[in-house]
Amino acid sequence: MSRKTMVRPGGRSARVQASVHAAVRELEAEVGREALTVPLVATRAGVTPSTIYRRWGDLQELLSDVAVERLRPEKAPRDRGSLRSDLEDWAEQFLEEMSAPTGRAYLRDALLGDPDGSNAGQCSAYAAEQIDVILGRAAGRAETAPDVETVLDRVVAPMMYRILFRPEGLDTAYARELVAGLVGTTDR
Amino acid sequence: MSRKTMVRPGGRSARVQASVHAAVRELEAEVGREALTVPLVATRAGVTPSTIYRRWGDLQELLSDVAVERLRPEKAPRDRGSLRSDLEDWAEQFLEEMSAPTGRAYLRDALLGDPDGSNAGQCSAYAAEQIDVILGRAAGRAETAPDVETVLDRVVAPMMYRILFRPEGLDTAYARELVAGLVGTTDR
Repeated sequence: MSRKTMVRPGGRSARVQASVHAAVRELEAEVGREALTVPLVATRAGVTPSTIYRRWGDLQELLSDVAVERLRPEKAPRDRGSLRSDLEDWAEQFLEEMSAPTGRAYLRDALLGDPDGSNAGQCSAYAAEQIDVILGRAAGRAETAPDVETVLDRVVAPMMYRILFRPEGLDTAYARELVAGLVGTTDR
Repeated sequence: MSRKTMVRPGGRSARVQASVHAAVRELEAEVGREALTVPLVATRAGVTPSTIYRRWGDLQELLSDVAVERLRPEKAPRDRGSLRSDLEDWAEQFLEEMSAPTGRAYLRDALLGDPDGSNAGQCSAYAAEQIDVILGRAAGRAETAPDVETVLDRVVAPMMYRILFRPEGLDTAYARELVAGLVGTTDR
């Protein structure tokens, strides 16, 4: 089990985590990501460097945690009235955020400083939760809908693959095509 | 344009690259990846550390180059007599190699020390070339076939997404399902 699962909300441990995360975000904005060091973050957060090493192992793991936190969706996907529109809307926004320079930097950090794979898994879980909300709404409208794993395979995976491996010419029309390929073009 | 595009085969530059890559591979096997440093690699390769820094920037970029080299397919995909069998065979092998601990480590290295994205692009180009061979054979047999980009979206992307973000329970049956979903189950 990774260190971070031991954090209790509201306890000292949660306060340390909040102040260290905040220090990373501030310093990233002020001095840039490349200039970050554990001692620098520790000083800003008001903790000792050894607190950071004990909890996160190294700078890369800390940056990975901060990145996942930033990739957490802030609200439920918009309700546009149909499965297809909801998926299109969500997929376009996902593609835009993840393919932007900041999104790519967070994705990279999340994947990179993540020895046990739990941060990458968390990124995927965020996407699955959002899709779940969309599919739940579709069920409420008695629309026929694929399952979450199929949406991950057919919509999320191709976007993520192209963001990471083949970003040239990627645009939101691609997100709409993927959705159309999955849920068809007749039920609009 | 990245440094490595300036390498001429057969020249001094190519010899330096070959000996540095070989040094990385040997030392990885002997002391493990975590213990690698630029001075250690330089000593083994018989070059100065500054040669490595000048050419690769840092250790991560060097490891990224070595990883891409290792991810290069060694031979053309097997000809199993039909599009579906060829794709299944290739996809199963791809999934097996990439999801193995060594494959995952190379993928990670390839993506990580890759500021301009050219190594990730090269990984995707390798897959596209192999698929191209398979689709060329299908055309020779007058089989109906999707295009390369569609195979990337429907077969390669889901495998890669799950390897990186959602590896639990991944097996070769999944590769076959993806192929079946794309080329159908009737033309076997």
